[in-house]
Amino acid sequence: MTELHFAPALFERLARDSAASPGVTRPSYGAGEQHAHDLVAEAAASLGMEKRVDAAGNMLLTLPGADRSRVLLLGSHVDTVPHGGNYDGLAGVLAGLEVAAGFVRGGRTPAVDIGVVALRAEESVWFPVSYIGSKTALGILPQEALAARRFDSGMTLGEHIREAGFDPEGVARGEKLIDPARIAGFVELHIEQGPHLISEGIVLGVVDGIRGSIRYREARCLGAYAHSGAVPRKWRHDAVVASAELVTRLDALWVELEEQGHDLTLTVGQLYTDAEQHAFAKVAGECRICIDVRSRSTDTLALVDERLKALCEEIAAARRVRFELGPRTGSTPAPMDERMQARLAEAAEALGVSWRRMSSGAGHDAATFALAGVPSVMLFVRNENGSHNPDEHMEMDDFAKAVAVMRRMASDFA
Amino acid sequence: MTELHFAPALFERLARDSAASPGVTRPSYGAGEQHAHDLVAEAAASLGMEKRVDAAGNMLLTLPGADRSRVLLLGSHVDTVPHGGNYDGLAGVLAGLEVAAGFVRGGRTPAVDIGVVALRAEESVWFPVSYIGSKTALGILPQEALAARRFDSGMTLGEHIREAGFDPEGVARGEKLIDPARIAGFVELHIEQGPHLISEGIVLGVVDGIRGSIRYREARCLGAYAHSGAVPRKWRHDAVVASAELVTRLDALWVELEEQGHDLTLTVGQLYTDAEQHAFAKVAGECRICIDVRSRSTDTLALVDERLKALCEEIAAARRVRFELGPRTGSTPAPMDERMQARLAEAAEALGVSWRRMSSGAGHDAATFALAGVPSVMLFVRNENGSHNPDEHMEMDDFAKAVAVMRRMASDFA
Repeated sequence: MTELHFAPALFERLARDSAASPGVTRPSYGAGEQHAHDLVAEAAASLGMEKRVDAAGNMLLTLPGADRSRVLLLGSHVDTVPHGGNYDGLAGVLAGLEVAAGFVRGGRTPAVDIGVVALRAEESVWFPVSYIGSKTALGILPQEALAARRFDSGMTLGEHIREAGFDPEGVARGEKLIDPARIAGFVELHIEQGPHLISEGIVLGVVDGIRGSIRYREARCLGAYAHSGAVPRKWRHDAVVASAELVTRLDALWVELEEQGHDLTLTVGQLYTDAEQHAFAKVAGECRICIDVRSRSTDTLALVDERLKALCEEIAAARRVRFELGPRTGSTPAPMDERMQARLAEAAEALGVSWRRMSSGAGHDAATFALAGVPSVMLFVRNENGSHNPDEHMEMDDFAKAVAVMRRMASDFA
Repeated sequence: MTELHFAPALFERLARDSAASPGVTRPSYGAGEQHAHDLVAEAAASLGMEKRVDAAGNMLLTLPGADRSRVLLLGSHVDTVPHGGNYDGLAGVLAGLEVAAGFVRGGRTPAVDIGVVALRAEESVWFPVSYIGSKTALGILPQEALAARRFDSGMTLGEHIREAGFDPEGVARGEKLIDPARIAGFVELHIEQGPHLISEGIVLGVVDGIRGSIRYREARCLGAYAHSGAVPRKWRHDAVVASAELVTRLDALWVELEEQGHDLTLTVGQLYTDAEQHAFAKVAGECRICIDVRSRSTDTLALVDERLKALCEEIAAARRVRFELGPRTGSTPAPMDERMQARLAEAAEALGVSWRRMSSGAGHDAATFALAGVPSVMLFVRNENGSHNPDEHMEMDDFAKAVAVMRRMASDFA
């Protein structure tokens, strides 16, 4: 239904160039991320778009509009989790590019500037910091975040920014990619990361809010190593059994709160005994636990945090171990702009593309823009196998429908 | 109360030479194990003992007795778990050496040969095979065990035996260190690996039986990786939550069976998500679980195995995951010889050293000898902090008392 000018070839090229079997890997501030920026910049140059890169390496590609005082911002990030999929992030940037291409190839000038953004470092698995790209783009990254270290390289964010050829001092000074007061609206297209749309046979989701999070990435349970055959129950300080009980009871807490109507996900994605010290013949003296809690409600996040701490205390006392939750990180829930939601819904209706309203379980750069006062919205495209895994799957036809809806909205934007 | 000729200096020397902070590491068929053999052989040579090394590298040091047709065997192994303690194994070999030294330095000839054995590769954390040293010493190691690989080097047991300068073909042919029919008795001194003796203020334990085991060292739970914020409960295949439930319910099973009077330990010493693929923002698609079950009763082991399998099926169905238990290894429970127990008890009584009868929770080479029909017994020495950890602690004075009991028993042995 809609002509795509760049996206299919760029998706293919980047899947190949970032292959890290299984899936693709484009580390935040890694070569794969830069390569994606370069290819997008090349396409934008062929459309005659203006290019600006900020101190953190975020890129803004602008198609001038009739009114140059305002900009309709479209985009996302291009980094991925390790062994993730090719669409998470990248699809939002390429959708913006396709909207701009629609104007240029159709020989039409938009009412306001169309700004396509490729943001840096959204996948906070690399650095323990949320929304690095959108926060630096708006000049609001807390300065201490520059000292956060990338989990694999051990280098700080500031060092990575410098190594990639950008300017950590500029970031520290709060230099911006764009003044938020100029942004008339921000639209971030993204594959849906859950199974709602696919299972309901609906193409698009108009997002009404983005979940915030609480994270304990470095929680530990500390017990005592002991012989597995010779130490009876009553003398054990078993970090594995205590951690397993915590995980099981957190899962039960999720069930309980869900039944009460709370919006929530609760995940322990990493759980591990110490590879240097564990053995099949040793009771485990230590176990690492990574806790990720998400909700649209700040109150729900606070409630889970309180219950988590109580559970740790109770289990620690009963099982003679100690829990250390370690540093807490996270993000604030962000409601999406109602007028922007209506614009997308109207465009979908006009084009006869099926859509529903839904929440985003995952965090996205749109949350940063929304919390900074920019009228923001997200458009989800159905996707077969979730995201953050090698099996992400978006039909190009569905993507084209989403681009058509965004083009329509941009054409109607005044 | 008892003069020690070699042990204090050898304990100290080997703690220093095998230091691997924290604790000590002497891998099976590693340089540290060989070094311990060399030092023990040197001490035995100074006592004029005969030396014989078998195809697997087990060492027999013999002090000739009046009747050379029979041998009273004393000893243990000298390898350790990674970052273990210095006494587990080594104490049994040095105790044997001290008994021989007692005869030599006292100018007395024992009634039968005194054979001090240093066995190889008892700590089956290195190779997934139980009792390699005692089985090769008796010529009964199953041939396929030579193909088992050491977890760290990736080399097979056969390759390690050859690399250490010994003869895997001889092992495969069933060559023996000693004919079991010649062995009048086997005594293995060992630190207690639990807290019973210490907590009761008793110096020695005379062991009435050794627990057997069932082990699933490579069990896995397989689910599906997914986004932690975007995939709701009902669509998850969460390997961590399922594994945690298995661990929690195995622990409850242990409580249940213990209340019914079963002798049992049940341990998950290793539990870990895949470091290559896990992330705090991903539901875990895989979790490894290492299961170790021990009991004096073969029936209890079989019952736990059955209940474990039923639990896996139930949890897999409820949580939409799959459990693969993988290969099962283990050992048979071994009762200790009653006459040999009585000999140790009589010697302890005669010397006024406090003792109690107890079972061994852990497996030991004495089990192999017992199951091969050799009258075998173990003598435990109290030990502050369990074994298989850096904090093993045996008072040299307690060790000296144990040596005195063994010397008395050997002197009375006819």
